[in-house]
Amino acid sequence: MTREYGPVALDAMGGDKAPQAAIEGAVAAHRQGCRVLLVGDEGVLTEELRRIGEASILDDGLELVHAPEVIGMAENPAGAIRAKRGASVSVCAELVASGRCSGMVSAGSTGAAVAAAVLKMGRIKGVERPGIATFIPFPNHPVVLIDSGASPECKASHLGQFGVMGALFARHALKIAEPRVGLLNIGEEVGKGASLHKDAHALLAARAGRLEEIDELIGSAGEESTFYRFVGNVEGYHMPMGAADVVVTDGFTGNVVLKLAEGTARAVIYELLAVLSEGRDSRAMEELAKDFAEVKRRLNPDGAGGAYLLGVEGNCVIAHGAADARAIQYAIEFASDPEAAGLVEIMRSAFRGLKAVEEGGSRVATSAGATAGAGA
Amino acid sequence: MTREYGPVALDAMGGDKAPQAAIEGAVAAHRQGCRVLLVGDEGVLTEELRRIGEASILDDGLELVHAPEVIGMAENPAGAIRAKRGASVSVCAELVASGRCSGMVSAGSTGAAVAAAVLKMGRIKGVERPGIATFIPFPNHPVVLIDSGASPECKASHLGQFGVMGALFARHALKIAEPRVGLLNIGEEVGKGASLHKDAHALLAARAGRLEEIDELIGSAGEESTFYRFVGNVEGYHMPMGAADVVVTDGFTGNVVLKLAEGTARAVIYELLAVLSEGRDSRAMEELAKDFAEVKRRLNPDGAGGAYLLGVEGNCVIAHGAADARAIQYAIEFASDPEAAGLVEIMRSAFRGLKAVEEGGSRVATSAGATAGAGA
Repeated sequence: MTREYGPVALDAMGGDKAPQAAIEGAVAAHRQGCRVLLVGDEGVLTEELRRIGEASILDDGLELVHAPEVIGMAENPAGAIRAKRGASVSVCAELVASGRCSGMVSAGSTGAAVAAAVLKMGRIKGVERPGIATFIPFPNHPVVLIDSGASPECKASHLGQFGVMGALFARHALKIAEPRVGLLNIGEEVGKGASLHKDAHALLAARAGRLEEIDELIGSAGEESTFYRFVGNVEGYHMPMGAADVVVTDGFTGNVVLKLAEGTARAVIYELLAVLSEGRDSRAMEELAKDFAEVKRRLNPDGAGGAYLLGVEGNCVIAHGAADARAIQYAIEFASDPEAAGLVEIMRSAFRGLKAVEEGGSRVATSAGATAGAGA
Repeated sequence: MTREYGPVALDAMGGDKAPQAAIEGAVAAHRQGCRVLLVGDEGVLTEELRRIGEASILDDGLELVHAPEVIGMAENPAGAIRAKRGASVSVCAELVASGRCSGMVSAGSTGAAVAAAVLKMGRIKGVERPGIATFIPFPNHPVVLIDSGASPECKASHLGQFGVMGALFARHALKIAEPRVGLLNIGEEVGKGASLHKDAHALLAARAGRLEEIDELIGSAGEESTFYRFVGNVEGYHMPMGAADVVVTDGFTGNVVLKLAEGTARAVIYELLAVLSEGRDSRAMEELAKDFAEVKRRLNPDGAGGAYLLGVEGNCVIAHGAADARAIQYAIEFASDPEAAGLVEIMRSAFRGLKAVEEGGSRVATSAGATAGAGA
């Protein structure tokens, strides 16, 4: 199942600033040594490359794949993926599914990217729903939030699986050996929340207790540990303060959380600048502005490369809809990272182990490229 | 149905800092002319009053009602209200239901306060689920969030009713003649979100179009307008920037949003102070600290009096669990405001009108104290 490491397919038509930001980001990533494949309307893309004086880059290794259609933000994602076979995001997912590319990046409709990945690449065996893991750069306490928008309607079993996927991602993205996983809830005490959260709490807690068993099985196949420590419920107030390394929630709440944290940080920074500017001269404000810019840079999620769709049979990075050229460049670099691409194999292995242990089986399901685990 | 305007019942045993903060807040509110009734364990409360040198205030009009039990944060709310007849929060709700008090305040378990209010006062006729309206002081763009924690599991019809209740609250609390009501969602376009949000969107939009009709009926009974303008979906990012005056969501998401906005603002302010303190002398930092304190004061939700439980047959204010004496004082003042207490009558009237119009009836249901509306 291990694929040759290939180029990253970029949905050049997706995002508020497409195709310009996409193309400029691709050119910058290409110059950094990333192999990129621009996917979109050939006429539009070559014209844009010409306009910015980069037409010659096509002779220098930046490739272009024609995809005449685009999926708009207001379209029904799954329906549009089925109806528009030539949509740029769909073609990207096919390029990954066929092995031509080792990863894809889209800043377009999140729903369309998720639908394309699920329909073209398929889900990893055992995964019920994909989840988007997003790195939120809260000051001093970065957090992996999963799901931040792939699956707006969740069952408890989905949240339970997000815990495992998020923990594996945190080990890779944050290099945390034993990530603390928490469940986003409306109180710290056990029994808080809707029935979804009560059930998910029980699942996450039970699985944390059995992960060593799973690891023994997976370990024998030479793969990563799935181990996490379950810290229980995490409230919104404590999330920015490092209450957990991985915060699990449904895709609706996660998406609201992600955008609200960004909007609140922005609103507070603007308010502070307004208050500080009263009674200070322009020189003092210039100095303050430098420090504010530094804080804004630290809080900018784009520096972390975007969000990662987990649970599908391919490497799929979802960039911010408002991504500029630099954010697209980071996302391509992120998707080009062999370790990131390696996450798919790790997820496969983890879900094989999970299935084996939870169904009481004595043997890890074999698959091409993985050795059978020792009996439990 | 109009009750004599009476004292506010304070759950003196509820909240992280109870009974101390509760008692100090009650004493301060009493000095401001509010009539307060302290509800809790008589021994504990008199001892605490003695300790702070305020024992004599009991001869000066501050009353005390004995309630020997307390409901903890980890208890199942409805079960605890049924089992502990002497719980302070329960006694508060009974005091309002009996007409002895015109309002209540609790900083204890939100679930327990909601259960006590629903079970002892009852819901307003036509209201399916109560909702907590919270005033979030985003800089320049204050927002009423409903529901922020009363009903964690919602149907679309509940969200539709929150829109009407939130709009009526905004007219009173924010004095906005025609509040802009938005639905918290994961995209701006119609059709985004889970089925709950798609259905709620349709309901909120349809009702906005019929409110003038409802108002005509209500207007004839001499009551407030229910009119709002529906601005559609609001994303987390735009919520702090004034995309709507009233943001409607389920109690789970709302509670997460409320706490996350608070936690994020705090984290950003701390990070800015840390960055600014590098390379600045203590005098410069002292000046900056003053401005930061001003911004923190502006962002402090306690100044607005807490949150208001809407849809029940009584005036119920829910204070922040971490409320200090000053926050409790504000909450009592808020609950003592005759206009706030008048909201109950306005909600009754609005839901009578809603029922009449939506069921196609030609007559506003009559009730004691309200005149029958003219035929449609």
